[in-house]
Amino acid sequence: MHTVITQRIEALRDQMRGRGIDATIIPQTDPHQSEYIADHWQTRRWLSGFTGSAGALVVTLDEALLWADSRYWLQADSQLADTGVRVMHEGQPDVPTIAGYLCTTLKPGSTVGIDGMLFSIGDTRSLEATLRRHDIRLVVDFDVIDQIWADRPALPADPVFIHDVKYAGEEARSKVAKILADVARQGADSVFISDLAEIAWTLNVRSRDVESNPVVMAFLYLSPKGSTLFVDPAKLTPEVVDYLKSQGIATAPYKEVKSYLASLPAAEKVLLPLEQSAIALLPILGERMVEGKSPIAVMKGCKNAVQVEGVRQAMVRDGVAMVKALMEIEDKVGAGERLTELGVADILTYHRSQQEHYFDQSFETICGYGPHGAIVHYSATPESDVELRPEGLLLIDSGANYLDGTTDITRTISLGHPTNQQRHDFTLVLCGHIALAEAIYPEGTSGIQLDVLARLPLWREGLTYLHGTGHGVGHFLNVHEGPQRIALALNQEPLRVGMITSNEPGLYRAGEYGIRCENLVLTTEAFTTDFGRFLRFETLTLCPFDLELVDPSIMSYEEVEWLNRYHAMVRERLLPHLHHEKERQWLRHHTREIQKTPI
Amino acid sequence: MHTVITQRIEALRDQMRGRGIDATIIPQTDPHQSEYIADHWQTRRWLSGFTGSAGALVVTLDEALLWADSRYWLQADSQLADTGVRVMHEGQPDVPTIAGYLCTTLKPGSTVGIDGMLFSIGDTRSLEATLRRHDIRLVVDFDVIDQIWADRPALPADPVFIHDVKYAGEEARSKVAKILADVARQGADSVFISDLAEIAWTLNVRSRDVESNPVVMAFLYLSPKGSTLFVDPAKLTPEVVDYLKSQGIATAPYKEVKSYLASLPAAEKVLLPLEQSAIALLPILGERMVEGKSPIAVMKGCKNAVQVEGVRQAMVRDGVAMVKALMEIEDKVGAGERLTELGVADILTYHRSQQEHYFDQSFETICGYGPHGAIVHYSATPESDVELRPEGLLLIDSGANYLDGTTDITRTISLGHPTNQQRHDFTLVLCGHIALAEAIYPEGTSGIQLDVLARLPLWREGLTYLHGTGHGVGHFLNVHEGPQRIALALNQEPLRVGMITSNEPGLYRAGEYGIRCENLVLTTEAFTTDFGRFLRFETLTLCPFDLELVDPSIMSYEEVEWLNRYHAMVRERLLPHLHHEKERQWLRHHTREIQKTPI
Repeated sequence: MHTVITQRIEALRDQMRGRGIDATIIPQTDPHQSEYIADHWQTRRWLSGFTGSAGALVVTLDEALLWADSRYWLQADSQLADTGVRVMHEGQPDVPTIAGYLCTTLKPGSTVGIDGMLFSIGDTRSLEATLRRHDIRLVVDFDVIDQIWADRPALPADPVFIHDVKYAGEEARSKVAKILADVARQGADSVFISDLAEIAWTLNVRSRDVESNPVVMAFLYLSPKGSTLFVDPAKLTPEVVDYLKSQGIATAPYKEVKSYLASLPAAEKVLLPLEQSAIALLPILGERMVEGKSPIAVMKGCKNAVQVEGVRQAMVRDGVAMVKALMEIEDKVGAGERLTELGVADILTYHRSQQEHYFDQSFETICGYGPHGAIVHYSATPESDVELRPEGLLLIDSGANYLDGTTDITRTISLGHPTNQQRHDFTLVLCGHIALAEAIYPEGTSGIQLDVLARLPLWREGLTYLHGTGHGVGHFLNVHEGPQRIALALNQEPLRVGMITSNEPGLYRAGEYGIRCENLVLTTEAFTTDFGRFLRFETLTLCPFDLELVDPSIMSYEEVEWLNRYHAMVRERLLPHLHHEKERQWLRHHTREIQKTPI
Repeated sequence: MHTVITQRIEALRDQMRGRGIDATIIPQTDPHQSEYIADHWQTRRWLSGFTGSAGALVVTLDEALLWADSRYWLQADSQLADTGVRVMHEGQPDVPTIAGYLCTTLKPGSTVGIDGMLFSIGDTRSLEATLRRHDIRLVVDFDVIDQIWADRPALPADPVFIHDVKYAGEEARSKVAKILADVARQGADSVFISDLAEIAWTLNVRSRDVESNPVVMAFLYLSPKGSTLFVDPAKLTPEVVDYLKSQGIATAPYKEVKSYLASLPAAEKVLLPLEQSAIALLPILGERMVEGKSPIAVMKGCKNAVQVEGVRQAMVRDGVAMVKALMEIEDKVGAGERLTELGVADILTYHRSQQEHYFDQSFETICGYGPHGAIVHYSATPESDVELRPEGLLLIDSGANYLDGTTDITRTISLGHPTNQQRHDFTLVLCGHIALAEAIYPEGTSGIQLDVLARLPLWREGLTYLHGTGHGVGHFLNVHEGPQRIALALNQEPLRVGMITSNEPGLYRAGEYGIRCENLVLTTEAFTTDFGRFLRFETLTLCPFDLELVDPSIMSYEEVEWLNRYHAMVRERLLPHLHHEKERQWLRHHTREIQKTPI
């Protein structure tokens, strides 16, 4: 492995020397600023060998470094141990940002080269300004990967299909009209959308271009004078072309997008959402560009009544699959049958795939047994895979895309003989989960304001977790979406009625185990008073928490009551769909009422 | 009143017409970006008649408008009712920002004129950019107030005195060395400080230049090559000049500051903290300016051990004064003696002034009876003053500067027959106060993350308050200081060990009453675990909460226990300083232990 990585990075350095580049940044994204990306764009993985879903590689003529966020510290350390690539633990106080590193490492007069299609305007501007202060130049046309990656995978060419309006709840035509009204409010004539999920949502189309994300690799130009989807023609059936035409959308080849933008009238004002639009588009649009916010993100985030009802139904199916899977895992471990982390992932996928409207998993299952559970975004490989024993904790974070909704759930279960510390830790995490689930907040409240509710029970005992508490979730779309978050990070986007967000506090004891309790919650109206409109969460996910790990003696009466009420709802909604008496018994037992006990 | 205000604004418009200015902004500040300002700078009050401590006036050739934040909505509505000045309720969804108003009201090609000494670089840049997008020019030398304000008060000329190091805990010389080390880290040779509290703290000097804020009207230039305080020579005694010299600080007249800056070597890099430095300094310093953060704000915010011990002792004296004042108020109201809001303020000031090391009140007492309590920053005037009756709620927010510390406390008391709603509301506010007081949080946590703790008990019942929950408090200095806050507003400054912050949730029922519960809290170390260092608050303020307003049936056992523990501490610390048996009985009764009662 070592040699291969070294050779690839040396090939990149040859290109850098040939172009007078002193450092380059290889981000983990594509020209759409995607989080999950098609193989064609997995350049950072190919160059470094690190498989995490986030983290940029920086290559100078002397060094190669990978910036890993806290979720990936352990994984990056392990995967890059023998590659010569240095892991930078992003977020540690002594670790510089990439810009900081470049400014202190490169000499004044140096040049940093990047592929401008892989960097958003928003991000690049602050990078450029920082570099400029240190007299370092940034060039944005350093796109050389094709020349060093001989067997680079082609762009995806999976067929596009229509997401029926009976699931989507609103015609594309209607959404486009609303988007263009917002574009006009932002002072522009038209808008250019790069974000794949926003395009799929707007047009009610899907594909399998990106693993787990049912998006279509495309760009979308919307204008009252005529709108165009830029997409590989090989992906389009006549039916889809006709459908798009019926919604007022013409099609053109993906590769023609730049020349199309260049040909727009000089007086046209084109809105570019700063966070999703590539810096490489700037010189093409020039004076035509109007900087702005995505007119789609909030609309897409707020699910309509049809979508919400679809998700509620998908949750019943997902809950049934989870119950069957958890039962099978317990049975196999109890019976001493061989079962590994990868085997657990297969069981989950099997039971989900038996459900109506199943499309695919919504992300690669995280199944971490014992110490693997403490690696926040661990995904088992044949090399790391371990066999489960009737003891210790198993953390399972998984989800699916159904035609009527997307799921994402984490359960941590005891495989036997939980220790007092495990029960104590689990209960604190669960109490944080409950506190957030029970929050009531005025309209306009954002996730950064609520995040502490999930953390406080841990903080009180000197414990914490470093990841966010909640992310937005799409509808038969990406499992991570904005604009809202529940996290310590600055994000002022309010939690709006109809938004679906995860609630997933955790606790990770390196070398021992990881715990996470995750449900999806829907923001709904609570009540309106003289002081305004107040919102609350409705928990959507339907699956028991492991009562073997619950210590009621450190819970309040209200917390115990919440858990009993939640389990009663799970039992009531899932029981009609479980037809084997054994499954019904399992569910009844795992959702039994518990009592608060004195300490 | 109407005519006078109209005449003043018309005089300003004459100046605007003469200079080709279409609109001007009169902020409520001085050339030091102060919050509390000397009479000389009370231009907005003089022009509009509005006496609130915040809120800018905008004058166009056709309109005059005052932007009031939520604390001042009611007060501004009332004071400006007949002036022709329109009140803009800042924060309401349909109310534009000042920049937004100017952009939609003025025609392209218009000119906005401001006095560049009254606007910080940070604020002005975004204003200028917004205006420029609408083709509106901003000129920063529109300084005409002297020409229309005939009897404008002179600049303050109160004597400067030394704040003894036995209170300050660190010599000025030592602070200057630390400041200059940070200036070098920020890549500059020297620093120019405009903030009056930062100057007073750095040099251990004080004055009475600004009501309630013991600051010195001055600018401070610090450089390893020699530092200078720019201050009116009339304010300096030979002793103070000698003292400053002994700390390495020369003096020069206040008015010479601009010419001094203009004379600095062309190659010198002068750090200008963006938020406190006037935009008018930019053309003077030109290329010499290094943009940066104040090197003083965090140092000043983190009190040293001597300061903390001083505050603890000041709190005992302030608590004694509060007890005597509350007792006197109760007695007088009970005996049917005439007592008004202004009378209450006098009682408070009297008892504080009898305490050792008393210097002045730290802000104008807010004493709001009944409906006046719902006006968040109400201060009674002879016109508004009302007599107290043996019923209803009285909100008293007051504080003092002692040589060894600054206090700020709000108590809400029942004058008789509290209603169930009053007790319920008070208890919810108190529960929010307790939740914040009890928080434990990892190092690096900022106030925006904790703010919700104080609000949640109210939110759960559809109630809220619109002001921040906590502000930093100086040491024998300004009662409002940064850099930390506990508020919904974005502020990422961590709560650091040694910082003193207020904890003051409230609830305001317009036309009925206001409730606020405020103590000052000190950030201290809680414990260090494998997960890092955790911090907590230590409550510093010593004064009972009114138990007549506490409804234990809606409190948890932990909340009741907190209140009993707090009251036991208050009793224990204050009793040795109360020498009349009646006072001792009063305190024992008002800090009696309460029991949680079933609902």
